[in-house]
Amino acid sequence: MTASMDKEVGEFALIRWIKEQVGSENTLIRGIGDDCAIDQLAADSQLLTSTDLLIEDIHFKREWTSMFDLGRKSVAVNVSDIAAMGGTPRALYLSVGHPKQLSEMEFKEFIRGFIYEARQYDVVLAGGDICASPGPLIISVTVQGHAKTGAAIQRHGAQSGDTVYVTGTLGDSALALYLLQSGQTPPDFLMQRLHTPGARVAVGRCLSEEGLATAMLDISDGLMADLDHLLVASGVGAEISLAALPLSDAFRCELNKDRALIDLALAGGEDYELLFTSQRSDLDQYPSLKPGVVKIGTIKTGAGITLRQDDGGIYQCRRRGFDHFIDE
Amino acid sequence: MTASMDKEVGEFALIRWIKEQVGSENTLIRGIGDDCAIDQLAADSQLLTSTDLLIEDIHFKREWTSMFDLGRKSVAVNVSDIAAMGGTPRALYLSVGHPKQLSEMEFKEFIRGFIYEARQYDVVLAGGDICASPGPLIISVTVQGHAKTGAAIQRHGAQSGDTVYVTGTLGDSALALYLLQSGQTPPDFLMQRLHTPGARVAVGRCLSEEGLATAMLDISDGLMADLDHLLVASGVGAEISLAALPLSDAFRCELNKDRALIDLALAGGEDYELLFTSQRSDLDQYPSLKPGVVKIGTIKTGAGITLRQDDGGIYQCRRRGFDHFIDE
Repeated sequence: MTASMDKEVGEFALIRWIKEQVGSENTLIRGIGDDCAIDQLAADSQLLTSTDLLIEDIHFKREWTSMFDLGRKSVAVNVSDIAAMGGTPRALYLSVGHPKQLSEMEFKEFIRGFIYEARQYDVVLAGGDICASPGPLIISVTVQGHAKTGAAIQRHGAQSGDTVYVTGTLGDSALALYLLQSGQTPPDFLMQRLHTPGARVAVGRCLSEEGLATAMLDISDGLMADLDHLLVASGVGAEISLAALPLSDAFRCELNKDRALIDLALAGGEDYELLFTSQRSDLDQYPSLKPGVVKIGTIKTGAGITLRQDDGGIYQCRRRGFDHFIDE
Repeated sequence: MTASMDKEVGEFALIRWIKEQVGSENTLIRGIGDDCAIDQLAADSQLLTSTDLLIEDIHFKREWTSMFDLGRKSVAVNVSDIAAMGGTPRALYLSVGHPKQLSEMEFKEFIRGFIYEARQYDVVLAGGDICASPGPLIISVTVQGHAKTGAAIQRHGAQSGDTVYVTGTLGDSALALYLLQSGQTPPDFLMQRLHTPGARVAVGRCLSEEGLATAMLDISDGLMADLDHLLVASGVGAEISLAALPLSDAFRCELNKDRALIDLALAGGEDYELLFTSQRSDLDQYPSLKPGVVKIGTIKTGAGITLRQDDGGIYQCRRRGFDHFIDE
């Protein structure tokens, strides 16, 4: 028996173990265990697909997160892309390149977290690939979902006069990362926002089913960068009110010590909140949108983002986009 | 402008360039450029999905392959999983973790090869993710296809008395790798089989559309390992005739120097040929199956694989499964 055979047997045993964890909740025609998964979509629905690659020391550091939370986050950040179209997530495909240093126990904790989070959204692990990595831990996730034909909310529909909304609060995740990078211990709330973000599936679905949004995406690169994507796709500009940005108590607490931290809410990234535009200006009072949404500005003709301060002045954000851990 | 902003602008420019390469052949409702791709499946069809992770120095070595061929192979090995269910491939999702050492020119060559090969199967690059890798080049591909409802050929339908078939020839890819690893220069034919394998989509489709196969998969881990998967899933055994194994002239030429190389045809891996069972024993004469298929044995009750020699004796294969470049 060769080393590679030992490894192969180990991999098949792991795949069997994963299949057992997924259990009988699998509503697909065929899940893990054949060349492909097989699924049947409803006749009046469209298929939504997105994929993300998470690489150790680029997107996460193992010393800052538990493997369980890393599994959870791997699901949430992908499901967030389905939420960002107003879709319903259905199946996940997971590939892992595992370094020698990762123990079987750690790998199983990762899988437990992955399946735990998948259950929150009623989505099933339907297939994947496991192999050795000569370096970093590599996590590649593809998510499939569906939306009623024509109901998926894309990026390009915003029009002058539309109101700009976001869900949740901004900057928490980036602030946690900033504190970790500067050697501090972030409050639990911020750590949770960084390591176990939630995907806003319910709000997204409500917006698509009731036809309330003209354009939408999720904030992964930061409000400024992602709003810019939406504006460019739609051929419009936006004026955003700085005072309207929804901030958590934990964020405000740090902001009181250092006003420049507002840039983390504008451009920190990894919020996984929904950013959308609507012809309606009263959605912050809309009863079906739970949790609620917050108005932060208005779509204008032209291009670009104007950040308006309370005193009428224009604020210049000094950050842009998501900082990877390593720069090139 | 920070280093990370430079990088981000570079990535967006690359994604725009990729979108241009894909061009207007995109028959999806939405391809590259939103949170998800959007696709509409025909009402009477089922969705097939598979995913594979390819990591430098585990699955390939850059000094042995051109980036163009690596792009081609990344497509073919994934499309092969759709072929293995008798499906029609439709969309590809590509994530790349690129190391600093990989130049933009090399990356673009990879994408050109990827799109070239995708066109061979009339399948479209529909989305993906690009990020930096701190180590190896990482390629993660997800493929989606479709099959008429109920027509996908799974692994578990083989029955005693069925005939076992394969497409093409076996062992070419493994022999090329063996020669490279021992410092020799493989003949062009073997190199092509290693670096630009083809996916047997037409044969697979014909088998599913005409309901000719009881079980099927593609040979990626080697005939012995993959046949074993099929047998275990079906609860049967098989007798395979050594003399019936289809071998290329280039393979026979090396085999004449060293008889032990037959194990590469049995267990070398990366053939990407179809292995299937059928109640019919005349499919090697079937006019619609182009290119043709070869009978290699028979399904038996019981379990396991018997390798029958011409003299009636039983052959023992001394290899098993695909050897990764590095052992753990």
